[in-house]
Amino acid sequence: MTPLSEDVSAWYNELVFKAELADRGPSKGSMVIRPYGYRVWELLQSQLDQRFKDTGHVNASFPLFIPMSYLEREAEHVEGFSPELAVVTHAGGKKLEEPLVVRPTSETVIGEMYAKWVSSYRDLPILINQWANVVRWELRPRIFLRTTEFLWQEGHTAHATEAEAREETIRMFDVYAEFANNVAAIPVVQGEKTPGERFAGAVNTYSIEGMMRDGKALQSGTSHYLGTNFAKAFDITFQDENSQLQHAHTTSWGMSTRMIGAVILAHGDDAGLVLPPRLAPIQVVIVPIGRGDQAEAVAAKASELADRLKAAGVRVHVDDRDASPGFKFNDWELKGVPFRVELGPRDLEAGHVLMAQRVGEVDDKGRAVKETLGFDEFVAGMPVRLDAYHDHLHERARSFRDEHSATIDDWDAFVAQVAVGFAYALHCGEESCEDDIKSQTAATPRCIPTESGEETGACIRCGKDSAYGKRVVFARAY
Amino acid sequence: MTPLSEDVSAWYNELVFKAELADRGPSKGSMVIRPYGYRVWELLQSQLDQRFKDTGHVNASFPLFIPMSYLEREAEHVEGFSPELAVVTHAGGKKLEEPLVVRPTSETVIGEMYAKWVSSYRDLPILINQWANVVRWELRPRIFLRTTEFLWQEGHTAHATEAEAREETIRMFDVYAEFANNVAAIPVVQGEKTPGERFAGAVNTYSIEGMMRDGKALQSGTSHYLGTNFAKAFDITFQDENSQLQHAHTTSWGMSTRMIGAVILAHGDDAGLVLPPRLAPIQVVIVPIGRGDQAEAVAAKASELADRLKAAGVRVHVDDRDASPGFKFNDWELKGVPFRVELGPRDLEAGHVLMAQRVGEVDDKGRAVKETLGFDEFVAGMPVRLDAYHDHLHERARSFRDEHSATIDDWDAFVAQVAVGFAYALHCGEESCEDDIKSQTAATPRCIPTESGEETGACIRCGKDSAYGKRVVFARAY
Repeated sequence: MTPLSEDVSAWYNELVFKAELADRGPSKGSMVIRPYGYRVWELLQSQLDQRFKDTGHVNASFPLFIPMSYLEREAEHVEGFSPELAVVTHAGGKKLEEPLVVRPTSETVIGEMYAKWVSSYRDLPILINQWANVVRWELRPRIFLRTTEFLWQEGHTAHATEAEAREETIRMFDVYAEFANNVAAIPVVQGEKTPGERFAGAVNTYSIEGMMRDGKALQSGTSHYLGTNFAKAFDITFQDENSQLQHAHTTSWGMSTRMIGAVILAHGDDAGLVLPPRLAPIQVVIVPIGRGDQAEAVAAKASELADRLKAAGVRVHVDDRDASPGFKFNDWELKGVPFRVELGPRDLEAGHVLMAQRVGEVDDKGRAVKETLGFDEFVAGMPVRLDAYHDHLHERARSFRDEHSATIDDWDAFVAQVAVGFAYALHCGEESCEDDIKSQTAATPRCIPTESGEETGACIRCGKDSAYGKRVVFARAY
Repeated sequence: MTPLSEDVSAWYNELVFKAELADRGPSKGSMVIRPYGYRVWELLQSQLDQRFKDTGHVNASFPLFIPMSYLEREAEHVEGFSPELAVVTHAGGKKLEEPLVVRPTSETVIGEMYAKWVSSYRDLPILINQWANVVRWELRPRIFLRTTEFLWQEGHTAHATEAEAREETIRMFDVYAEFANNVAAIPVVQGEKTPGERFAGAVNTYSIEGMMRDGKALQSGTSHYLGTNFAKAFDITFQDENSQLQHAHTTSWGMSTRMIGAVILAHGDDAGLVLPPRLAPIQVVIVPIGRGDQAEAVAAKASELADRLKAAGVRVHVDDRDASPGFKFNDWELKGVPFRVELGPRDLEAGHVLMAQRVGEVDDKGRAVKETLGFDEFVAGMPVRLDAYHDHLHERARSFRDEHSATIDDWDAFVAQVAVGFAYALHCGEESCEDDIKSQTAATPRCIPTESGEETGACIRCGKDSAYGKRVVFARAY
């Protein structure tokens, strides 16, 4: 496999196929998520969905097809999405009177339904999420990162007041950041998007930005305060407590199968995938070694250890394929399994296993140092080890990010910095200046970090007064 | 609400909206599954998915769009699905070179991928399922039963031998039947479809058929043995153990959001929905009654009881809305909650709750008899009561079905029987004769029941020799 350090793009493409995460679909830009990759998605889904339910949300399902006229009701929205639409013109053997758009996002169709469901302040808030597929026609497709169809969740909420809708927008923004850190082990920068990078139709867009192994940013989730833009376009009105007719304030927020791309690019290495344990389909793989007479006893022990780990909530797999231990070890390394364990006749006799951690201590030759663990210690200690391994990956990614981030006040330094990572710089806020920076360096403003201190000065590019009262994070991005 | 006994169709439509299960979507024939209905789907999904995983299957995701030419590779398949296709002709602002079909089912695109993935007998079997949306253009849409878009799962497996593929087909057929009985409380008839009712492209189709409250049948799940038809069309070949090139044998099987329609129509009554407990979003609702001083103590007790039930794995809801107890009781009755509990100040003092079962004993006026249960008895006994209630619904549906089923050997009796239920009759097996029966009675052959004994004789309609060696179940169907 092409090393990551040599060509990230080639490494990524080869890895996605070799680890059997995904494959190209038959029509241009489409993808097939294979079982190993889909299991990562299921683990992501279940843990993110639990967070939505814990914050009072319920799931529902809205139609795939949206009448073209709906999109046209919100001017910025249709302008933003028009170039990416797939359109159904014929159905049931006939030409349709009005073409149907395959949803690129569902604010419009959901707005139409909310208008039907809401009449009084008592009907609010509505806190609904949907897990769905969406279609955006991509010219330069890339599996998981930009595909014509992708899977995601889209939350859509409606509220009686701006304050409540803004609170919701930030709540879900924080849920995404917490999820990225605590499940995907990606230490994200949280911040608001600059006006030029906002969602089409939003008043404010907030994003979480992870740093990939090549120093590029990857937007991994967004939360939008939509003001009354969609409520006005779709007539979501309600009588308030004083019987006054008001427009609702709405929000939307989404995370998608892009997140799998983020996990690959944030943690991977030359040997392949590195999966954070909370998203790993297999957390521990046991490779039984032994032939003839001894095979049965070793297999029985492997199976017993696996049962004990399963009972402790660990996702474990016994690899009993007809292949060499070396082949198996490499295969599971490529597939990013956190802990690989070998168990042979001598280990059985000694009452221990030999365990290698996917990312951990290595010897002079760069090979993983194997730990010797007694059976009980191995089983009982695994949940704690998985947590520690999560922390290790998170800390490694955080150090990497910090080493590749810098506060920059000089254009040449800026150019050099965005070639390798994140540049924290002052900016005038003009879209034309953003465009100029992009054409010179390929870098874009990723967000205005929530946590940055107040600061003003001269724009890094044009020298005019800075906007936002804070530094902006610039980076090349996926 | 229109009573079920008066007009099933009106009752069904009103109930779907009033119970907030679903709503019509903006484009013709589309539906919005609202949170209460979607929760039923989530409960169905999780319990069915567990059965798939327990039988060795994994999930994956295949593309929504299928090149038109793929469908054309299997002659019967394209003939069967052509009239129902929705077609994307434009995308990304351009006319597509080849139109893309929005999947009506995925045998073709999955066949294409399996051909890529399989080369040796060692790559088999492939046991994949996907949870997805599909589109079939319906002229007479009906929420949950026939909508232009619906949600489903489709399992697609590939095997080295016919025997293994047939075994898989029957295994999943049995999983569906077990699920219908043990989760949806619907006692289904299992059987093979007659050739005229087979899935387009299948060698054999097996279905489970439930009886609805109006005596009509509802096909609730199908499992198909596809032979080598799709393997030949998509070139799914492998080298067997003797290095001979062979075509794989494939199967497919699906259950959809139709099942929610089946649950409504199999169990509902004049008062509204009756949900089987294993699919009920709320299994127990507690309505606290009490004003002023007492309200707080009652609310605290309601909340404590709810927490104890939750800890026991029961889905419980405390209805603390600002509305009358009578309104709330009717509302939860309409929504089909198995157990409704009231808790007032006097109950609090006496240390008990008053509980009504959605379908159970009634007094002379037809009102549910309320049971008095001590707090501990109420909490500790609930899991067993829910199981007993499931059994009660299943038994009620089974009795109803048996009372509305008859073995028929006379045409006039046949006409009368299919007007009210299932007719077990001998049939010649000719499609023209099936068509004749349909035009005379609206009844179709639902399946050739697996459990029926061997029998031959004269066709119920035309008098020719019977086919299949068994009786066929005829009924009007959804």
